[in-house]
Amino acid sequence: MAARSRPKIYLAGPEVFLPNAREIGEAKVALARAAGFEAVFPLDPSLEIAHLAKPEQARRIYDADVGLMNACDLAILNMTPFRGVSMDAGTAFEAGYMRAQGKPVFGYSNVAADLKARSLAWRQAAPALVDADRPDVVIEDFGLAENLMIAVAVRQSGGTVVSRRVARGAEMTDLEGFKACLAEARTVLRVGA
Amino acid sequence: MAARSRPKIYLAGPEVFLPNAREIGEAKVALARAAGFEAVFPLDPSLEIAHLAKPEQARRIYDADVGLMNACDLAILNMTPFRGVSMDAGTAFEAGYMRAQGKPVFGYSNVAADLKARSLAWRQAAPALVDADRPDVVIEDFGLAENLMIAVAVRQSGGTVVSRRVARGAEMTDLEGFKACLAEARTVLRVGA
Repeated sequence: MAARSRPKIYLAGPEVFLPNAREIGEAKVALARAAGFEAVFPLDPSLEIAHLAKPEQARRIYDADVGLMNACDLAILNMTPFRGVSMDAGTAFEAGYMRAQGKPVFGYSNVAADLKARSLAWRQAAPALVDADRPDVVIEDFGLAENLMIAVAVRQSGGTVVSRRVARGAEMTDLEGFKACLAEARTVLRVGA
Repeated sequence: MAARSRPKIYLAGPEVFLPNAREIGEAKVALARAAGFEAVFPLDPSLEIAHLAKPEQARRIYDADVGLMNACDLAILNMTPFRGVSMDAGTAFEAGYMRAQGKPVFGYSNVAADLKARSLAWRQAAPALVDADRPDVVIEDFGLAENLMIAVAVRQSGGTVVSRRVARGAEMTDLEGFKACLAEARTVLRVGA
């Protein structure tokens, strides 16, 4: 990586939905910078889309995010479960998008329980929601933190999903797992080597 | 598409976890064939991986699925909510993977409620699960069936997420939405034109 000293990270995760999203994004960008990277957080107030019709707003955000992904060299995924057993669906989409371009993806989850344990807990909680799960539907049992497509994508990038238990309520904001991903990325991309 | 009369569809969705996955896969392949396509269902018993260690099993499945995606021309996604508000995370990953290769993705959901309605229902149900959702976290409000990254990916492919209400319990197996996606794909890819 001598020719390019600062690989560019796409910061994927549902924290874009937080009221203090910009603050979290700035904290992640600063940590990435201190670790030898550039980083982009896909929350761009300059889009100025509020006056547009909703489908057009969605399209502009999509195009902006895809443009950022195309310009980045790797991604770090916040894989913390979001409104269900699994990670945010948009973040999963972005993981696949980056991997198809051959770019490494690293990931962390601020919930320590693995996918199997979370899926079993889901059935016990039995929330009254329309959902395709049923008692006879297989639960993946590979000891992985997430659906194998994403967990193996992280492994084949040279990382491992960093799963940590954090204080209840800090699942979206705790950045220790993110720091561990930065350390993995430094090794794999030989940043500072 | 004259030079290649049968575009190849990657059949993405959580029905691979059903006990009768093979039967569902065969039904989808037959419907696709009748509509002028070839189709592959990512459940390959010939992998013969049961004797391997779990991480190696997961890796083999990932590699097989990625190989199938690379060989396909488009995907049809089963986007029915799975163990939470959103679609299966592996299917979302595959949607991103295909889009990064410039391939069209079409999708259906057997739940009619849109993402906003489902997210609000999630909060009302308040399942006792560790999760990053909180009352102050933004719920996407674009009138879309799913996280905008996937919903817009479908739109930019020339389709629209086909959302239908089906009989309770048939969320994973009803194929009317799938047939509607085949019709969209025929138009976009000019199959039979």
